[in-house]
Amino acid sequence: MDDVERLVAIEEIKQLKARYFRCMDTKDWAGFEAVFTEAAVMDMAEEAGDVVHGAAEIAAYVRGHVDPVVTVHHGHMPEITLTSSSTATGIWAMEDVLRWPEGGPLGAMHGFGHYHETYERVHGEWQIATLRLTRLRRDVEPAG
Amino acid sequence: MDDVERLVAIEEIKQLKARYFRCMDTKDWAGFEAVFTEAAVMDMAEEAGDVVHGAAEIAAYVRGHVDPVVTVHHGHMPEITLTSSSTATGIWAMEDVLRWPEGGPLGAMHGFGHYHETYERVHGEWQIATLRLTRLRRDVEPAG
Amino acid sequence: MDDVERLVAIEEIKQLKARYFRCMDTKDWAGFEAVFTEAAVMDMAEEAGDVVHGAAEIAAYVRGHVDPVVTVHHGHMPEITLTSSSTATGIWAMEDVLRWPEGGPLGAMHGFGHYHETYERVHGEWQIATLRLTRLRRDVEPAG
Repeated sequence: MDDVERLVAIEEIKQLKARYFRCMDTKDWAGFEAVFTEAAVMDMAEEAGDVVHGAAEIAAYVRGHVDPVVTVHHGHMPEITLTSSSTATGIWAMEDVLRWPEGGPLGAMHGFGHYHETYERVHGEWQIATLRLTRLRRDVEPAG
Repeated sequence: MDDVERLVAIEEIKQLKARYFRCMDTKDWAGFEAVFTEAAVMDMAEEAGDVVHGAAEIAAYVRGHVDPVVTVHHGHMPEITLTSSSTATGIWAMEDVLRWPEGGPLGAMHGFGHYHETYERVHGEWQIATLRLTRLRRDVEPAG
Repeated sequence: MDDVERLVAIEEIKQLKARYFRCMDTKDWAGFEAVFTEAAVMDMAEEAGDVVHGAAEIAAYVRGHVDPVVTVHHGHMPEITLTSSSTATGIWAMEDVLRWPEGGPLGAMHGFGHYHETYERVHGEWQIATLRLTRLRRDVEPAG
């Protein structure tokens, strides 16, 4: 890849991750599923003990956890590296702010950490292939 | 536009939006007005019931609301799309943190949402043509 | 520099600043020192009355202040300007969230401000040459 192709890919991956966040927080679950490769793996082992396989399963898993929750997820300071013309790695700083409705398992959560990701270009479109979340800090308010 | 022209435009629009935030939070009202096209429209209907027309009027409106307020506005995860060589659309995740002085209408506000924007290139410089704010969450502390 | 060289430099400087934040928050002090030029200057006069000279001294200074502290530092909305093929300036909005361990000088701190920076390309790699922090707001909780 030349410099321009690399810069275009980096910008496309940034916009891909933007859709990941926006679709989760606006509960656009079809849009959310579309950011992942069919065989994507979401590693939430540190967070919740779970490793989820498959775009449809990831969307169902996340929807099951946060559909009724007011969620805010922001990503910052991407470090995206192209490893070939159709593969890339990325690290993102993140912050999330969640508030559960009455009767939820928690009251609120405010966290910070990093996403460690890989990407693949499938039929010309970048998608998230693997995602692993590590935490710097996680403050939880119990259900009231 | 070729890829390089498109990437240059996207970077210029990101820096335009950076000036929007920095000028508001440092109360540089001349710099703030300069980020908008002369006929710009700021749609704060969801936020405050207001739709403001014109760069000078937008700057006066925002200044009237936040000049004495300690404000922090951050933008995240831009999705900028060029629709021609001189027009573009953008979505930005946002967070704002406000603290009013003694005697203000509120004590504090902490919010999250998205800006939905359009941009125009006027005399070679990108400016914000329209801006609409939608909210995910808005936490308010009454005046103490 | 042509447009492509300028865009590549801007992306490299964004990833440089990403390493600054990630290495500080994950306490990777060798990685942190490597983001600075040998003669770098960190101006924390407004923050703490200190101006620190030299990459090794900066890393030791920051490590001395935050090694046992749970820290989160995020940067936003970069305004990076190339001033030659090997020098650049940048402004970044920032937020930091700190929590000291038992017995620390403070309990917690939550702040917002701007970094005002310059960069130099040394042996092909961009590094931070000068850094100055200004604040919009700083909320402190005393040690409990």
